[in-house]
Amino acid sequence: MSQWPICFEDVVAARDRIRSHLPATPLRNYAPLDGAVAAAGEAAGIRLLVKHENHQPTNAFKVRNGLSVLTALSEEESRRGVVAATRGNHGLGLAWAGRLLGVKVTICVPLGNNPEKNEALRGMGVELIELGRDYDESVEVAERLVRERGMRLVHSSNDPLVIAGAGTVALEILEDPEARRLDALVLSVGGGSQAVGALTVTRRLRPTVAVYGVQAERASACHDSWHAGRPLSTATADTFADGLATRHVYEMTFGALREGLTDFVKVSEEEIAAAVRLMIRTTHNLAEGAGAAGLAGVVRLRHRLAGRTVAVVNSGSNIDEATLRRVLSQA
Amino acid sequence: MSQWPICFEDVVAARDRIRSHLPATPLRNYAPLDGAVAAAGEAAGIRLLVKHENHQPTNAFKVRNGLSVLTALSEEESRRGVVAATRGNHGLGLAWAGRLLGVKVTICVPLGNNPEKNEALRGMGVELIELGRDYDESVEVAERLVRERGMRLVHSSNDPLVIAGAGTVALEILEDPEARRLDALVLSVGGGSQAVGALTVTRRLRPTVAVYGVQAERASACHDSWHAGRPLSTATADTFADGLATRHVYEMTFGALREGLTDFVKVSEEEIAAAVRLMIRTTHNLAEGAGAAGLAGVVRLRHRLAGRTVAVVNSGSNIDEATLRRVLSQA
Repeated sequence: MSQWPICFEDVVAARDRIRSHLPATPLRNYAPLDGAVAAAGEAAGIRLLVKHENHQPTNAFKVRNGLSVLTALSEEESRRGVVAATRGNHGLGLAWAGRLLGVKVTICVPLGNNPEKNEALRGMGVELIELGRDYDESVEVAERLVRERGMRLVHSSNDPLVIAGAGTVALEILEDPEARRLDALVLSVGGGSQAVGALTVTRRLRPTVAVYGVQAERASACHDSWHAGRPLSTATADTFADGLATRHVYEMTFGALREGLTDFVKVSEEEIAAAVRLMIRTTHNLAEGAGAAGLAGVVRLRHRLAGRTVAVVNSGSNIDEATLRRVLSQA
Repeated sequence: MSQWPICFEDVVAARDRIRSHLPATPLRNYAPLDGAVAAAGEAAGIRLLVKHENHQPTNAFKVRNGLSVLTALSEEESRRGVVAATRGNHGLGLAWAGRLLGVKVTICVPLGNNPEKNEALRGMGVELIELGRDYDESVEVAERLVRERGMRLVHSSNDPLVIAGAGTVALEILEDPEARRLDALVLSVGGGSQAVGALTVTRRLRPTVAVYGVQAERASACHDSWHAGRPLSTATADTFADGLATRHVYEMTFGALREGLTDFVKVSEEEIAAAVRLMIRTTHNLAEGAGAAGLAGVVRLRHRLAGRTVAVVNSGSNIDEATLRRVLSQA
């Protein structure tokens, strides 16, 4: 069986479905950012390009994934609605797409979920079901709704339409004139949709572009599995970059990551926090931990990337105020 | 003499010159923001629309102004280049436009200017002249360059092409389907280019839209003059919203502000800081003080605006890290 859950044409089709609703986000170079990364590395400079997914209407790239799914539903599926268990950007993306297209979206969260996130989800008109003690129990709730109400489950990674939506990030990067001489992409990995989407695009359009994966040391299941060559789990996934907090690998993305990534590194909580501050200081764009983890990976890989043109994705800026205050106070 | 430095057609012409380089920025509604403003006011809700000028390539609306000027230069003016005395977003906007169009931009800053801002300006390829003890002395340096090198001076407010560029913000707002039922615009006022540009647009397209001005209590020359009916100066302009730190009114904007604004309010440093935090918490977009001052004005005016649809502009996000840390620590 092929390692690849989707093909390049799936990404192009997703882009065609979403582009009228989600214009291409900017890809920008910042001299102060290049300067700071070079200084940190005492090496030849890196020309860094930042893809601003934080400009999306939900402040995160995941809205591409949600819209990719909802624009591809059958009439019957649209009528029944979709359901997902998620505490974060995947839910916001589905909610936004559902409101746009008039598809009912149900989101299952555990009891005691962050009230700010619940408020944002409700504000977009989703049915929010607060049930279960933790994330795994809210997954069970979602699965029950699939059985009982015939809703379509939208997994945040294990879904070809999700991965195709995520692949449109890399497609836009490669089509941008700024990226004509791109050497590498450095991408954070949670479930892996963005990285596998990107690999699907680069292997067809520009196989010389190296793609690196980045995970948090404190949620390193996918990183560890990649190096071990077999799926491993971790007991906890306790990083402030909550968009990356997965304890397992996903069947639909792991094989492609294994085959396609040039390397896979992990970064500490301190390195991610430093990257959030660096993003704010040099680009004046907000980033959540997962949104800055790619940049933390570039700093970690700076010697290997010296002299190259490298793109990172500010994949989201949904950081809560208390976390931002803590990150800034560590400087 | 008319109070109006430009006419509606000047704004349309500016938009036609800049639109291929600066796509329309998003205008977005955030349920959590509406909820927070309503709770603060214990009044009927306000439907708030946020115009995201912080998404511009220089993170501030001023890039419209710079590009409006540089796309309208004669061949001779383009050859000689432009000069401005500015420590902030006006300089970045000119620098960006100059790099895009191949026009030499010279920026005069006083000795001891913020090194981060100098680095950002140099990173965009401007000639930076650090001379003079304060802003007024760097204005003299700029004027000398006009005399000696024949450069065109670009004032941050007293220039019809600047005001026309700034007016494109309001033009985009009024053309946005989200703003079909717009009742009011609440805009921060530094030199007044954005407010006068907006008034030029509303009086032609939608005279029922009320436009309110907002200044910082600690830099209230324009506010005080507006209420007094004559130009007044202040001895200091000491607000952390440095984009609003003007001690005088400007001849080209004051008359129009007098004639057009529905009201003009001032807000404290604490109110501006609270608005920066509110913008971050509910929209997950960064804002500098001047960028959030319009929102602070809405909170101040919440009883008068109850039940209305109101647009504010996140006019910029170029806040430095230390200031952001201080603003967040006040919560």
